Amino acid sequence: MELEQNRQEAAKTNNPIRCIVKLGGAAITCKNELEKINEENLLSVCSQLRIAMMSGSSSDKVLSLDWSKRRGASDSAPVVEDFTSQLVSECNNFVVVHGAGSFGHFQASKSGVHKGGLSQPLVKAGFVATRISVTSLNLEIVRALAREGIPSIGMSPFSCGWSTCDRKIESADMTMITKAINSGFVPVLHGDAVLDASLDCTILSGDVIISHLAAQMNPEFVVFLTDVLGVYDRPPSEPDAVLLREIAVREDGSWSVIKPVLQGTCREVEISVAAHDTTGGMATKISEAAMIARQGVDVYIVKAATSHSVTALSGRLKDDIPEDWLGTVIRFIR
Amino acid sequence: MELEQNRQEAAKTNNPIRCIVKLGGAAITCKNELEKINEENLLSVCSQLRIAMMSGSSSDKVLSLDWSKRRGASDSAPVVEDFTSQLVSECNNFVVVHGAGSFGHFQASKSGVHKGGLSQPLVKAGFVATRISVTSLNLEIVRALAREGIPSIGMSPFSCGWSTCDRKIESADMTMITKAINSGFVPVLHGDAVLDASLDCTILSGDVIISHLAAQMNPEFVVFLTDVLGVYDRPPSEPDAVLLREIAVREDGSWSVIKPVLQGTCREVEISVAAHDTTGGMATKISEAAMIARQGVDVYIVKAATSHSVTALSGRLKDDIPEDWLGTVIRFIR
Repeated sequence: MELEQNRQEAAKTNNPIRCIVKLGGAAITCKNELEKINEENLLSVCSQLRIAMMSGSSSDKVLSLDWSKRRGASDSAPVVEDFTSQLVSECNNFVVVHGAGSFGHFQASKSGVHKGGLSQPLVKAGFVATRISVTSLNLEIVRALAREGIPSIGMSPFSCGWSTCDRKIESADMTMITKAINSGFVPVLHGDAVLDASLDCTILSGDVIISHLAAQMNPEFVVFLTDVLGVYDRPPSEPDAVLLREIAVREDGSWSVIKPVLQGTCREVEISVAAHDTTGGMATKISEAAMIARQGVDVYIVKAATSHSVTALSGRLKDDIPEDWLGTVIRFIR
Repeated sequence: MELEQNRQEAAKTNNPIRCIVKLGGAAITCKNELEKINEENLLSVCSQLRIAMMSGSSSDKVLSLDWSKRRGASDSAPVVEDFTSQLVSECNNFVVVHGAGSFGHFQASKSGVHKGGLSQPLVKAGFVATRISVTSLNLEIVRALAREGIPSIGMSPFSCGWSTCDRKIESADMTMITKAINSGFVPVLHGDAVLDASLDCTILSGDVIISHLAAQMNPEFVVFLTDVLGVYDRPPSEPDAVLLREIAVREDGSWSVIKPVLQGTCREVEISVAAHDTTGGMATKISEAAMIARQGVDVYIVKAATSHSVTALSGRLKDDIPEDWLGTVIRFIR
């Protein structure tokens, strides 16, 4: 009880959290090529995030906060005067969490890190290899955000003290995340290899992190940026796949599709079975999203780098969902 | 008091810590070129660390734990069978801390991060830029260690919850560092930009981190790997510079050179004034080292990637300092 209180205390930010956004691994990396970033998507995502985070500064000259050397890019040393003359652009309080995509997956699955057992050399090696891969992706995303002028700070769940027991979050220190936000930074977390009290180690997914952060921080809304338009009633590659536009979650955690109106009586069961797990874990996504929505936090699942993601990130969907907006809204219905 | 007890508790490892080793920024980066690693030195340092850490496994085939793509290197996918057939090589409990060298320095000094004041856009930008630079160095060092088969885990002091007040460590969570060691990993920390309760932010140097870790973990010995043979009585570039071979630290924290026997009566004062701060902060180094030695922990300052660093890392100097060993030993004299 006291622990819970301490946690809530540690999660308190000076200002309410505006949004927790998940950059899906499939949206920002090239799925079929080992450790390859989808540069075009990432650039677009970061640019959209800048507009969403920095209210009223979208027309300003963008000053990069990444002053490091870049492969293949010409050196552009920052001009100190630019910063001193610029007004402090206040960031709406955002938290970014990203998945792994083609980073980490190979290392984790090859070694079985998610199954635990650190006394096995292969698992221990895989733990190290997985962390190297996911932290290198984290660094690239932090840099891409910083180049858009977003004061991003990479924070690995492992280092922050997050650990699990039987794959469920056992300890998740919010102190530094909260401090970073209160200091005006945007924490950038990621799916990570973590220590597990019962299995030695496992993989903590970005979706589980989002769900935990949402419970602790009570943001205004949560956005999942993925590589498809939203949640479908079956794999979106199938010709008859229907985009689920609005899902209502009730107090008891049960949920139903309220838009479009689906045929048949067994539709809920059908969906929960059909909801596929091939592109970024849609089944996990719906159940995690329903958990978040149950607390009264709107969840938007939307295709990254589209006009629809701009709308979702702006928060305008809270008041009104335009007829031409494509994506999935998951919200609590009393 | 309770806090102190909690801290000590959190710092308890299952087995005693063998060694805390500092990779000096000047030793592993090219000082005069922005963000350039001294690859040759780093490789040699990592190879020496492998021998020191993995007792009895030096002749084994080295299996890389870095399975990520490398620029300019041919892909070498790990062979799972190699790991399954290998015995678990137990790592002596080591902690690695590295400096920044030509990483981070430019960003920090350009923006004045060390002086604080996050409400200034330039300082806030510099904080982000500095962290990007030092964490990218950290990733490279973690990877270099992993390629030598060392189960290295990058841990940023910022993310671990380390913060300062008026540049002095105020909070330094040892929990995850201890857990990582107990799980058989080698934590790799680094000088970092951190939050400061009175200044907003500052730079926490690798030397201060080492000093704090040593106080909490009570290692058998501490090694500073630098780019010169050890501590001199004046800048080592000067022709008459004398390498200080042995410095004795007394209970009250005062220290004196006991080898070589120096001329003159004011020698201590002379040294403390002359001790230069140009190559990696020798003045800070001596006083931090003296603080560590006062607790009964031997400190060896030695040139990286030499036969002398092999000897220092082996721990053999505790019993006997060979006549031909070049470096500086700083130890407690009752």
